[in-house]
Amino acid sequence: MNTPVLIMDRSKVLSNYRDMKSSFPDFHVAYAMKSNSDDSILSILLKEGSDIETASIAEIRHLIEIGVSPEKIIFSNPVKPESAIRDAVEAGIRVMTFDSLAEARKFIPYKDFIKPVFRIDVPNDGSLWVLSGKFGSPKRVWPTIFQFMEENDIPLAGITFHVGSQCEQAATWGKALERVGECALLAKSYGLKPEILNIGGGFPIFLGREIPAIKDIAEVVYASIEDLRREGIVFEKFYAEPGRFISGPAGTLCTRIIGIADRDIKGQSEKWVFLDTGVFSGLMETIDGITYPLYSSGTGEPEKVMLCGPSCDGADKMFRVVLPSPKVGDIIYMSGTGAYTMSYSSNFNGIEPPSVSFVDATGNAPENFILN
Amino acid sequence: MNTPVLIMDRSKVLSNYRDMKSSFPDFHVAYAMKSNSDDSILSILLKEGSDIETASIAEIRHLIEIGVSPEKIIFSNPVKPESAIRDAVEAGIRVMTFDSLAEARKFIPYKDFIKPVFRIDVPNDGSLWVLSGKFGSPKRVWPTIFQFMEENDIPLAGITFHVGSQCEQAATWGKALERVGECALLAKSYGLKPEILNIGGGFPIFLGREIPAIKDIAEVVYASIEDLRREGIVFEKFYAEPGRFISGPAGTLCTRIIGIADRDIKGQSEKWVFLDTGVFSGLMETIDGITYPLYSSGTGEPEKVMLCGPSCDGADKMFRVVLPSPKVGDIIYMSGTGAYTMSYSSNFNGIEPPSVSFVDATGNAPENFILN
Repeated sequence: MNTPVLIMDRSKVLSNYRDMKSSFPDFHVAYAMKSNSDDSILSILLKEGSDIETASIAEIRHLIEIGVSPEKIIFSNPVKPESAIRDAVEAGIRVMTFDSLAEARKFIPYKDFIKPVFRIDVPNDGSLWVLSGKFGSPKRVWPTIFQFMEENDIPLAGITFHVGSQCEQAATWGKALERVGECALLAKSYGLKPEILNIGGGFPIFLGREIPAIKDIAEVVYASIEDLRREGIVFEKFYAEPGRFISGPAGTLCTRIIGIADRDIKGQSEKWVFLDTGVFSGLMETIDGITYPLYSSGTGEPEKVMLCGPSCDGADKMFRVVLPSPKVGDIIYMSGTGAYTMSYSSNFNGIEPPSVSFVDATGNAPENFILN
Repeated sequence: MNTPVLIMDRSKVLSNYRDMKSSFPDFHVAYAMKSNSDDSILSILLKEGSDIETASIAEIRHLIEIGVSPEKIIFSNPVKPESAIRDAVEAGIRVMTFDSLAEARKFIPYKDFIKPVFRIDVPNDGSLWVLSGKFGSPKRVWPTIFQFMEENDIPLAGITFHVGSQCEQAATWGKALERVGECALLAKSYGLKPEILNIGGGFPIFLGREIPAIKDIAEVVYASIEDLRREGIVFEKFYAEPGRFISGPAGTLCTRIIGIADRDIKGQSEKWVFLDTGVFSGLMETIDGITYPLYSSGTGEPEKVMLCGPSCDGADKMFRVVLPSPKVGDIIYMSGTGAYTMSYSSNFNGIEPPSVSFVDATGNAPENFILN
């Protein structure tokens, strides 16, 4: 087997999309292509009727090029270069996110063409990568922004939020939707009429810990929407933006042990296992603490080791794990690696990202995957 | 001005190389191409007589393709796939680093062709990115490795170390060379005769703090070599592996403010400034705490802001800095960005890395650059 290779299971991409859609039947499911923008994945999802969530004008251009209708594309990066807004409008994109006054200002020339969706700051409890902070307008700023929109006749088409990436607590969606309610009421007082509700992404996948099922998250979301309705806050169109949920579990990274070394870390001896894939060639999320369930082709006594990548960089180290007696040549299979692996890859040190191989398998990872 | 663009000053690449060479006149200066592998830089250095330090077989293949003689190439990644060692030997590469028994084992079929250089663990005091830990053999392992080499007739061609990236204390090289002495004495007792001394990289550039001049580091190194000589430890061939020192100060990244937003961070309001270049499109080193001296085209009252990048990723945030009243459209010039920027870039979110533009300017960054 040539390594490193990312095996992508097309049937899983499809079943993950269908799970999402069946849990959120009246939602537009807009696949976050930043998680894995491979055309093979896009094509499966587009055939199935998926919308696509984009983060840049380059992503939009690519979709238009491969024939995606602009109505299926939403532009959810809250902060965009002015030229990107112009080009997106020209391409026929209507739904776009913002979360600041400076961004609302850029909308003025395009106000008759666009559907601005306002991203609010919400708690990110239980998520592995907190997005609150960088994105989402805090409550204290809402009045200034809404007044500006009212004065400049910029429509407020909807409200959105993001609970953070890989959010492992269903209740966090409920808290976010409470805040959506507050925001919608305030908007109303400025004569603004948000009709779109976009619940963002963050839907978790199995990475070794207990997670809520997508049905459980949907239950929280639908109950909260019903609560809002009872308060007179009614949305007409719904979006969800799963990325990792669709592409993540479809991927298994096959990487090989290329070296083993004795090291001293703070005076303690430790075995380091060098893989042919590292932080800069696919496993970037490990630096923020992600650990993938994995399986080794090796046999022998279990040993605790530190996994690291093939580059000369000291930051190219991943996580500690117990492996059956590791040897140069053993293959390590990491599951849940279909999302945010290829998309983060660079050619640092001249080391190529893994190749990608699509299969139509079914079934789950081997039962003996090692959980960290 | 189209942004983002990295302006690379060819004349600085040349003068940095010459500074290095004049401080270390009897050293082979082997440029660490992982810092910036642009052919324009390689070509300047090769014409000047530089050797090249490589981290992967892909880098070696590229050098051979552009006509570099294999004697000018050293392969300094201490952990290499077996196939990379085979292909490097076939390409005529002789000098290669190792720091583990598993790696020494891979050398057996090639022992008549290669010059193995042993990398030892040394203190990384004063360096911004510690490499100790991932690389460098701890002292307790040396006897096992040397015995294996003696028994298998693998030559020990030399000793090397790395003080860590951007090492800002000259004395750290002295400490490392003391340990080289210990290692050389032990090697002798196994009948091994290291003739190469490679002092690695880590030579610092100006990033806003006081740093030792390259002459001062050379003074420490030469004094230590003299100390070793007095103890009967004599090396015949010397290498240094500057990367950042040569390419870093030659680069100025020109990036534009594309958005400004009010945020709440732990209950405190803060202004966030969004640039068209971020962690995943060039400024990766900021996540480990690097701050580049910078200059803004903006004017007005100084304000403390948080700089972040254009992607939808929460990790795409950089550092806090005081800018003259930031506005969308202002250009931010970051100096010292010629190294480890393009090489770490990915296309995450579909966002392209900066374009690169070569100039032949002279002189230093504007005197009014803001230091963080």
